[in-house]
Amino acid sequence: MEKIKCFGIIGGDKRQLYCACGLAADGFDVILCGFDRSEDPPELPSRDPESTISESDALILPVPVSRDGKTVFSPLSYENIDLRYCLELCGKDKPVFFGVYGKAEPSVFEGHRAYCYGSRNDFAAANAVPTAEGAIMTAVSESTRCITLSPCLVTGYGRIGRVLAFMLRGMGADVTVSARKSEDLELIRAAGMKAVHTANITGRYDFIFNTVPAMVLDRDTLSRCAAGLVIDLASPPGGVDDKAAEELSVRVIHALSLPGKTAPESAGDIIKKTVYNIIREEDI
Amino acid sequence: MEKIKCFGIIGGDKRQLYCACGLAADGFDVILCGFDRSEDPPELPSRDPESTISESDALILPVPVSRDGKTVFSPLSYENIDLRYCLELCGKDKPVFFGVYGKAEPSVFEGHRAYCYGSRNDFAAANAVPTAEGAIMTAVSESTRCITLSPCLVTGYGRIGRVLAFMLRGMGADVTVSARKSEDLELIRAAGMKAVHTANITGRYDFIFNTVPAMVLDRDTLSRCAAGLVIDLASPPGGVDDKAAEELSVRVIHALSLPGKTAPESAGDIIKKTVYNIIREEDI
Amino acid sequence: MEKIKCFGIIGGDKRQLYCACGLAADGFDVILCGFDRSEDPPELPSRDPESTISESDALILPVPVSRDGKTVFSPLSYENIDLRYCLELCGKDKPVFFGVYGKAEPSVFEGHRAYCYGSRNDFAAANAVPTAEGAIMTAVSESTRCITLSPCLVTGYGRIGRVLAFMLRGMGADVTVSARKSEDLELIRAAGMKAVHTANITGRYDFIFNTVPAMVLDRDTLSRCAAGLVIDLASPPGGVDDKAAEELSVRVIHALSLPGKTAPESAGDIIKKTVYNIIREEDI
Amino acid sequence: MEKIKCFGIIGGDKRQLYCACGLAADGFDVILCGFDRSEDPPELPSRDPESTISESDALILPVPVSRDGKTVFSPLSYENIDLRYCLELCGKDKPVFFGVYGKAEPSVFEGHRAYCYGSRNDFAAANAVPTAEGAIMTAVSESTRCITLSPCLVTGYGRIGRVLAFMLRGMGADVTVSARKSEDLELIRAAGMKAVHTANITGRYDFIFNTVPAMVLDRDTLSRCAAGLVIDLASPPGGVDDKAAEELSVRVIHALSLPGKTAPESAGDIIKKTVYNIIREEDI
Repeated sequence: MEKIKCFGIIGGDKRQLYCACGLAADGFDVILCGFDRSEDPPELPSRDPESTISESDALILPVPVSRDGKTVFSPLSYENIDLRYCLELCGKDKPVFFGVYGKAEPSVFEGHRAYCYGSRNDFAAANAVPTAEGAIMTAVSESTRCITLSPCLVTGYGRIGRVLAFMLRGMGADVTVSARKSEDLELIRAAGMKAVHTANITGRYDFIFNTVPAMVLDRDTLSRCAAGLVIDLASPPGGVDDKAAEELSVRVIHALSLPGKTAPESAGDIIKKTVYNIIREEDI
Repeated sequence: MEKIKCFGIIGGDKRQLYCACGLAADGFDVILCGFDRSEDPPELPSRDPESTISESDALILPVPVSRDGKTVFSPLSYENIDLRYCLELCGKDKPVFFGVYGKAEPSVFEGHRAYCYGSRNDFAAANAVPTAEGAIMTAVSESTRCITLSPCLVTGYGRIGRVLAFMLRGMGADVTVSARKSEDLELIRAAGMKAVHTANITGRYDFIFNTVPAMVLDRDTLSRCAAGLVIDLASPPGGVDDKAAEELSVRVIHALSLPGKTAPESAGDIIKKTVYNIIREEDI
Repeated sequence: MEKIKCFGIIGGDKRQLYCACGLAADGFDVILCGFDRSEDPPELPSRDPESTISESDALILPVPVSRDGKTVFSPLSYENIDLRYCLELCGKDKPVFFGVYGKAEPSVFEGHRAYCYGSRNDFAAANAVPTAEGAIMTAVSESTRCITLSPCLVTGYGRIGRVLAFMLRGMGADVTVSARKSEDLELIRAAGMKAVHTANITGRYDFIFNTVPAMVLDRDTLSRCAAGLVIDLASPPGGVDDKAAEELSVRVIHALSLPGKTAPESAGDIIKKTVYNIIREEDI
Repeated sequence: MEKIKCFGIIGGDKRQLYCACGLAADGFDVILCGFDRSEDPPELPSRDPESTISESDALILPVPVSRDGKTVFSPLSYENIDLRYCLELCGKDKPVFFGVYGKAEPSVFEGHRAYCYGSRNDFAAANAVPTAEGAIMTAVSESTRCITLSPCLVTGYGRIGRVLAFMLRGMGADVTVSARKSEDLELIRAAGMKAVHTANITGRYDFIFNTVPAMVLDRDTLSRCAAGLVIDLASPPGGVDDKAAEELSVRVIHALSLPGKTAPESAGDIIKKTVYNIIREEDI
């Protein structure tokens, strides 16, 4: 990590600003680009793309890299920053760390020393925490009931499902988790929770948290459940049959991008740590 | 409990409406009075005070009973309902259940068969849950950081402190609890948390939750801590030196009446259950 | 605490030896008396009662002080150490810390500067941990079943009940706690466990842990339960109708003095810490 | 599952007897073979291998199938039961469920309808519970200290590591888990525990639980730790350098086959459930 002394941070939301602050606190030089609209910018130098890239040893691009396929995703800037141009300025050797592609063409990174931090398992694992906390906050604020003692269903026992179920149980909820694999069903029970096969979901749940990116809560399943509030954490199109839910008078909230919304500081810290992990593993 | 067939519910906020629905769901007749402004009133009969009281076998008054010392606290009504008049209508024998006095004179209940549900230990214990959940929701929504893994301080190990510390620990926070009694300090440790004597609070805490109705977080203590966000759950004047906090750039949120705000349905259920407990204990 | 430089430890079991080692590790001089049968004695000076007392600034007597009313309880010694003689040697001014009386007459301490550490709340709170761990160990080793996922009943929500229920829940058991006070019943629920009034205990429990020093598990209650293994943590006569249990084929284990048996080192540490607390509070 | 009406259980320890009882309780006919030495045999018919197999629709062999490569592992029998002969009696069509091979040649099952329940993930996941409970029981009974509040290290975050770390944390221990993958390190932190890379294990731990079947606690690592008690859960040769441990005065306990030892009833239940899972998945 001794080779990189200065990071350029181009584009992104508050998470990137917190990431920048974290890097600076760790002793790195940091140059910002694309945060001219930020209300409360950190005291770090801001430059145009050319200077940012020429003066820094590595570049960090946001999550996602682009929402239009052309410019860097920069909600905190009045400027349009061309993604391809930035990469050209980086050349073949300057490391570029980027979040998920979004609408950016993967091919745009070809020939560059580009590392995707947004698709890594450690990134996803760490972001399960702000996601789960955001889901719980949403449940408490949108419902008239307490979570503690309430029957809660978490669909899926992947990273988010596991962390969320663990927290709900830790708060005293009566937690059931659905999964398909018999191994997962045993692991759910081993953690002191109730397990149900996804195909057999039934019963009354004051809260249902969907973590599965597939149509798990279809009309059939919703009809078999007496569901209070459904919080869908899966990316669009989500895992809930919204039309059936409406007909069954089940309220559904699609809670997306929770880490950036509820905990941008922690989310920025996770970007920083993941970049460090890449640097260590790849010996950059 | 067989003697009471019909409850009259006069005044109060959403909690009383949920309490009313709960009583109806349990098979009681319920008459409402003082909810004419309610946006989404339950399908239960509404009457004036005279009919409400004459047709019911027992009366439930709100938390608090009165905010002006004269009328029943009725935020969901355009009418003024005179407290003393209601009690006169009840006479000597009709049981009246009421929450805390607020500005009402305790003497106004003299000569009546009045039972305070709001000052009971079981009521306070049950309300610790929505209070703790509301405190956690506030912490997540008002902070840019996650609770999990963060150093959190809970001051006080009474009912709310205990439930809140337990939940935070269950969510994976790094929990320290302050108390004064050596027994409490041992019980805190026995629950797998760090204990500190109130006089010796020090260190960095991303979140401080005050549950003690006394000036615990005074200038001295705040100076010794690197506090992120302080959430004060104690009734006014609270337990934080707000002026010192401001000077030290520590953000303080006074989070009051959380059960009614974040979980009126659960809070209404608690009122109902406490009334049942009184009826059982007093053989009403 | 600066006035005491040397502690004399007279009598007791392994706990007192660990307490002595802890005091020595904290920088105190320590003199032992009554450990001549100890198999693996610590490297600390041993003296007769006269020298031990004359050379030390304070005396620590064991838990209990005496089992015969005359001599100091000294299971690790071949000698008989007269309790009254020891106290005479201490005179009026030398502080004497002692555990519970056992068969010793309280009057024997009159006129002496004696402090009972064994009856203090902080001592009891801290000992709840080794007691609960010992109870769990007993349950695992004496049963053919796992605790996790099993229905477990803890009777009583005092110090031991609370710590034990908390641990069982933390291990993933399906925990019900019985209590009498409606406040306790609410606090049990607030901690995410099932609550049942002591008078209404019923159902199937693979494990029942009694923490109440009263006949809670009488014939009636046992008949209403399908109990697997009962572990009685209450001092004799205990809280289980042993005859009824035998007739109902319910196995009962009376697990007593668990801290000294399963964790003498931690138990000795608790004695040391409690003595420190007394010294601080009494400004000795 | 309707096709199987009668199970033959040949060989094995108490787990197989509890499995047999569970099958009988679920309504199956069960025939036992190889339990003539059992002290407290269940009230189920016992036959010789020939009758057992001819009268049953499916056969359950033990964990492991054989310890000598020739006979069925039958510690509760005076007889030698030839494995190859049993399989011949089963023929090509009768389902045979067996645990791990042990010394049995895999080829011996060729041409038979054999299903290994012992190598399945759901079997391993479910057995993590009795393994973890047995490890905790061993820790409590072999140590003079409490687990609660003690620094504990769990090496590895696979099934057993996860369940064990979860339980220790639930009991109030100060838990650190070591792993190699950065994803696992994040998941450990997300569960509110400390994470350390396996290569960097250091510090004082009152208890170290090894779950990794590789030399994790080598001389280097042990020298960097101040370890109290090491409990090695990995199969021989285990994960601890025993010689180095002895030289460093670190006590090591190799705790093997814990499910069968500490919870044969639960372990037998797990065998039953896993057989059911196979039957369902394979549509037997």
